[in-house]
Amino acid sequence: MANQDLKPGERLDKLLIDDLELIQDPKHFCFSLDAVLLANFVNPKKKDRVLDLGTGTGVIPHLTQAKYDLQEVWGIDIQQEVIDMAQRSAKYNKLEDKLNFTEIDLKEALEFFGSESFDYIISNPPYMKVGSGKVSPKKEVAIARYELECKLEDIVKVSNQLVKYGGKVAYIHRAKRLAELLALMKDYNLTPKRMRLIHSSKDSKAKLVLVEAVKGGGSGLEIKDPVIVYNKKGNYTTEIENMYHPERD
Amino acid sequence: MANQDLKPGERLDKLLIDDLELIQDPKHFCFSLDAVLLANFVNPKKKDRVLDLGTGTGVIPHLTQAKYDLQEVWGIDIQQEVIDMAQRSAKYNKLEDKLNFTEIDLKEALEFFGSESFDYIISNPPYMKVGSGKVSPKKEVAIARYELECKLEDIVKVSNQLVKYGGKVAYIHRAKRLAELLALMKDYNLTPKRMRLIHSSKDSKAKLVLVEAVKGGGSGLEIKDPVIVYNKKGNYTTEIENMYHPERD
Repeated sequence: MANQDLKPGERLDKLLIDDLELIQDPKHFCFSLDAVLLANFVNPKKKDRVLDLGTGTGVIPHLTQAKYDLQEVWGIDIQQEVIDMAQRSAKYNKLEDKLNFTEIDLKEALEFFGSESFDYIISNPPYMKVGSGKVSPKKEVAIARYELECKLEDIVKVSNQLVKYGGKVAYIHRAKRLAELLALMKDYNLTPKRMRLIHSSKDSKAKLVLVEAVKGGGSGLEIKDPVIVYNKKGNYTTEIENMYHPERD
Repeated sequence: MANQDLKPGERLDKLLIDDLELIQDPKHFCFSLDAVLLANFVNPKKKDRVLDLGTGTGVIPHLTQAKYDLQEVWGIDIQQEVIDMAQRSAKYNKLEDKLNFTEIDLKEALEFFGSESFDYIISNPPYMKVGSGKVSPKKEVAIARYELECKLEDIVKVSNQLVKYGGKVAYIHRAKRLAELLALMKDYNLTPKRMRLIHSSKDSKAKLVLVEAVKGGGSGLEIKDPVIVYNKKGNYTTEIENMYHPERD
């Protein structure tokens, strides 16, 4: 990408798959291991119409499109600047016919897309309840991290509205909020079917949880082996290394 | 114990703590690793009044009394024969002033004990829904394994009735039913606060889950490191070995 395509403050980060690069701005929330974990956890089919709620700079649509050769992925976010970056990244990566980014409030998504219009919905929602820590003075970062613009229940509710019956929904969230997350999914007819916990090391408590649910699915949750991020030496485990250097499925 | 204290078919099994022994009958459901895991997961205080719902031959009251020096533990079960064995074990172990076993239906426990009469409630409930597998032709085993006499919701409901506000409840159950378990606990004002998953080996899915809740507790679940049962050589891991050869706290 030529430098003139970047706006002041923006930088270009490699996604380490298919030579993809993503425009980010440190002023905003930059993608982290969480997005990589989620993109490696989901398993959409090539023909699935996929939506990422709160997409930020579009890292999850980029990674999942590359990994599963998806033909139609949407990402929505309430922040105009990150959607602008996501759109330019898609264009730069020559994926603008497959990746669609739209600035839209979650509350307007049902009207915009229509009910049950997606096969697979993904989200890496804001983790923190307002009042549960020091909210970043950077508004852009605060919106991505804190439930300022949307609460977890809003995301689960919209997921239920937009996903087809029998379709899938996958989230990453704080392990601390697992009980709340599973209860909300149940309330909105999204039956948890597959789960993995993320531990920093094998002897530490879980920090994050990945959950996939099926709309209208029967009960029976498969809890896979835990994801361990760091080995004893403090380096990424082989599993995490492989996520950062993936191959197409 | 003299042989004349055992009824036909019964045997005496060592509990490997304080020289305790437990009367069991292979015709009934004999205690397994699950009970040992649960007894090692709970953390009652010495002065706590503790109740084990569906106690069987009383393994959990025996193990937790020994580990935490509890002064008053109750175990109830609907099956007369196992309560008889539990009572004789308590007497044999000279713990009849601390361990109390009563044949009683779960549905009558509220009337029998009175509401909010315990500090800590423990249960290793029947795991299997009726219809989810071949029910054992041995009625005694079937009652312990299948939800013939009580459903998970009955146990959670009675736990809520019998535990004090701010008191604790701990269960072990199948990992597959985690979502259902957490949702039920929420419905009955038992807030999950601590959890561990049990995996056969470090790369396998979770089979069981241990959950501790606080009645009326605030949200925020701590998911501890997973329990791995077998090492690569197929032997018990050090953690499991230590559970079978415990020392008093």
